[in-house]
Amino acid sequence: MFRRACTLFSNTTASTVGRATQQPIISNTNNLNLSFNRSSLKMNNNQSYSKSMTMDNICPTVKTAQYAVRGELVIIAESLAKKLQEQQKNNTEKSLPFDEIVYCNIGNPQQLKQKPITYFRQVLSLCEYPGMLDSAHIDKIFPSDVITRARELLGSINFTTGAYSGSQGIAHVTKNVASFIESRDGHPSDPSDIFLTDGASVAVQRILRLLIRDRNDGILIPIPQYPLYSATIELYGGSQVGYELNEEKGWGLEIPELERSLKQSIDAGIQPRALVIINPGNPTGQSLDRANMEDIVRFCHQHRLVLLADEVYQENVYVKEKKPFVSFKKVVKDLGQEVEGLELVSFHSVSKGVVGECGKRGGYMELCNIDTAVKAEIYKLASIGLCPNVTGQLVVDLMVKPPVKGEPSYETYQKETETIYESVTCNPPEGAMYAFPQIRLPARAVEEAKRLGKAPDAFYCINLLEATGVCVVPGSGFGQKDGTFHFRTTFLPSEQAIEGVCTRIADFHSKFMAKYK
Amino acid sequence: MFRRACTLFSNTTASTVGRATQQPIISNTNNLNLSFNRSSLKMNNNQSYSKSMTMDNICPTVKTAQYAVRGELVIIAESLAKKLQEQQKNNTEKSLPFDEIVYCNIGNPQQLKQKPITYFRQVLSLCEYPGMLDSAHIDKIFPSDVITRARELLGSINFTTGAYSGSQGIAHVTKNVASFIESRDGHPSDPSDIFLTDGASVAVQRILRLLIRDRNDGILIPIPQYPLYSATIELYGGSQVGYELNEEKGWGLEIPELERSLKQSIDAGIQPRALVIINPGNPTGQSLDRANMEDIVRFCHQHRLVLLADEVYQENVYVKEKKPFVSFKKVVKDLGQEVEGLELVSFHSVSKGVVGECGKRGGYMELCNIDTAVKAEIYKLASIGLCPNVTGQLVVDLMVKPPVKGEPSYETYQKETETIYESVTCNPPEGAMYAFPQIRLPARAVEEAKRLGKAPDAFYCINLLEATGVCVVPGSGFGQKDGTFHFRTTFLPSEQAIEGVCTRIADFHSKFMAKYK
Repeated sequence: MFRRACTLFSNTTASTVGRATQQPIISNTNNLNLSFNRSSLKMNNNQSYSKSMTMDNICPTVKTAQYAVRGELVIIAESLAKKLQEQQKNNTEKSLPFDEIVYCNIGNPQQLKQKPITYFRQVLSLCEYPGMLDSAHIDKIFPSDVITRARELLGSINFTTGAYSGSQGIAHVTKNVASFIESRDGHPSDPSDIFLTDGASVAVQRILRLLIRDRNDGILIPIPQYPLYSATIELYGGSQVGYELNEEKGWGLEIPELERSLKQSIDAGIQPRALVIINPGNPTGQSLDRANMEDIVRFCHQHRLVLLADEVYQENVYVKEKKPFVSFKKVVKDLGQEVEGLELVSFHSVSKGVVGECGKRGGYMELCNIDTAVKAEIYKLASIGLCPNVTGQLVVDLMVKPPVKGEPSYETYQKETETIYESVTCNPPEGAMYAFPQIRLPARAVEEAKRLGKAPDAFYCINLLEATGVCVVPGSGFGQKDGTFHFRTTFLPSEQAIEGVCTRIADFHSKFMAKYK
Repeated sequence: MFRRACTLFSNTTASTVGRATQQPIISNTNNLNLSFNRSSLKMNNNQSYSKSMTMDNICPTVKTAQYAVRGELVIIAESLAKKLQEQQKNNTEKSLPFDEIVYCNIGNPQQLKQKPITYFRQVLSLCEYPGMLDSAHIDKIFPSDVITRARELLGSINFTTGAYSGSQGIAHVTKNVASFIESRDGHPSDPSDIFLTDGASVAVQRILRLLIRDRNDGILIPIPQYPLYSATIELYGGSQVGYELNEEKGWGLEIPELERSLKQSIDAGIQPRALVIINPGNPTGQSLDRANMEDIVRFCHQHRLVLLADEVYQENVYVKEKKPFVSFKKVVKDLGQEVEGLELVSFHSVSKGVVGECGKRGGYMELCNIDTAVKAEIYKLASIGLCPNVTGQLVVDLMVKPPVKGEPSYETYQKETETIYESVTCNPPEGAMYAFPQIRLPARAVEEAKRLGKAPDAFYCINLLEATGVCVVPGSGFGQKDGTFHFRTTFLPSEQAIEGVCTRIADFHSKFMAKYK
């Protein structure tokens, strides 16, 4: 039948109008018709083949971009893990002084045994296989609110998780995200400003892609920062403009330092285009206070900077009574006319907080006051990737709309999230899921590192990994004040495990200091 | 406890070595300490705020990149769909001449009612909620091989889909992909050459990112092509070098045309770096024959082009007896020494074929003969995005290792995949899931389009959409020979539906031609 429709179009008038837009720069316009000689294609095999894609001719910013969170340390850790596995499999003699690798390099809660929220997984399970809804045993396995929620979500996606959604995300989910933001902030949120993404990283990259034209575009980022920012700015060929957080004041963010950084950028001919704030902080774990946030917003408004608010740790605020999480959107809206028009993009993710569903790659961003035409470009970038993965989008929906009081799943949900909070409140940071301790290295250790061509803190971390199996990330990957050294570690290992981790680190540290003193 | 570990490091020797690599270009080295005056932050509200991010100052290649598959047509279609929905909800008078939008713009099988494979979804369902494994009713819902497979997959991911996997993907899955390739091609495949990705698009973009430094780097792409290529090459600031497929010969790929295109590129000072082949073709649906593939491989080898083989439609070969799918890897390996060293990257996806799990965003690429250092850069790019979504990775595993004869799920699997094949074999294309019919437009229609600032085929497609609700993509988005016009349509609507679609298109076409003749 289809053949019929296709051949219908062959016997009608022709036209000779030129090509439409988006044509290859070079194509068959001259019709050169070079003669083709198959034998000319045969290689001279005496000539050895030299690769066409080498380190000398790949995109230079790919080479210069660095990403410490999964860098050298992790590659060493993975090879040690393999060694351990083989040892255990072949029952050969133990050659390593530890039995397992503890991955404290990345906030990956479920790898470190944080349990997923039962309600979330039950709903996903039904969405993956809706056939179960017809099973006679269904209500023996799933609570009724799980079944209702799964039906509701399935209804919003044509009853399958297997179709592309709209590029901006499932409409039902963007609507629920907007409602979540509204009730969190007490200010309206428009679903058409919400873009769902495969984790927050993709969203951050999409906005940076718009902002960066060349080396003369600068993005203000904290020192220390999360390496996604430095890596992406480098990859896109822009300039990182660092502002230092004050370690002595609990990694506080001070406006004079922002002013200094901005001025230095302008003096260097680099136009500052946006300010990145990670709140609660990664790797530092600090939460900003309200007055500070207001000053930051005023600063951005005064200097016409787009404010990029990385708020993926909003659920990880451990001193909630003292410092509840406040979003930058709320601060901007509360300030009202004073900062009218400020462009703000806020990022959130399902990977952190009590959800901790890193593997799902779910996230969203909210655009505030972004120019309509620019928003259309953001949509286009999203559409080139077709759509964020649908399961990840469903997790976003579950995160922003968890079970409420009165629903059968509420009690379990409540208990599970409390357990997760309790297991971390014994730790010092106010937010996020990391600690960023400073290490004071002996001069001889620094020299030794230099001799080996390593950053001194990287040298320390490699030694730590090889001695204890604990994988952390050197501070140099995040940026740190001249002459100071740090490492970032998650404090996600379970309560029993973290005791062991601390002992191992302390033990290693004494030995290391003794060796190089 | 953790506090203890952290504070251990404060009373030891300090060092003053400078910063490690990857520092912001600008940071607090001078310590300018500008005085801070809060009142200076207050905006003069009489001054109206002009946006900082506008079409005049965003990254120019974002603006020039175009992506037709989800472009203007789809935006119109979505607004029409909204209108229909409101009509139905409010029971208001019908203002549109159709009751539904038929999305033929994109290969999205499950949106057009292709059923997911039961076995796949059952396994995923268990992986999402392993708690079910302990249910007394489990074996009344799931066949035993589903349970076994879910346990096996869960064992490979620490029993949760919620943790980040390695950046290259789950080791268990890359191993199974390599086995799949080995048994398909009869040549070895190394799991360390397999990179899992969020759909094939991400993989394609990652390789193009490496290849493109600036406008002087050219990528040979077919005309017509899949707009991911043109959009990405533009976005990364490279040059598209088009070679035309021969419509008269069933969209055949002819070496003289490749030679012409290559020469034209070199003459223009653009270094050709890679050749993209989409086989089976998108949007054209053709499958290459073996001799042709050998010539293409020789051509790449002779000219030191990286061969990028987009083989996502390998399962969509509808004339299997006549022309079974042959991978470029197999051709390269069969040719052996003659094309020794040729760099090849092959892409595959779970979105197409009988799997059709677009929403899952699963895919992989295999690297052949890629330089080791370059491979490390590919790994780094992958790590910046942390990892592909885990559910998508599991779907890849299921795709490359479906149930086999003797397993309880085999019969259903067999029946389901046959049904999918049968429902499409009535259509003309040899592979892929699209048709790309030519339309001959009357001069007056071309003029009218011009007047409206539209490509003539886009003008035709918008009219088609508004008259019939059928959403297709204008050929200009894919590239077409000068003076010819086409549109791309999927032939995925169900057999009954496609009859209606054809009638509606034919009816519209007569009226359109009559109007502009």
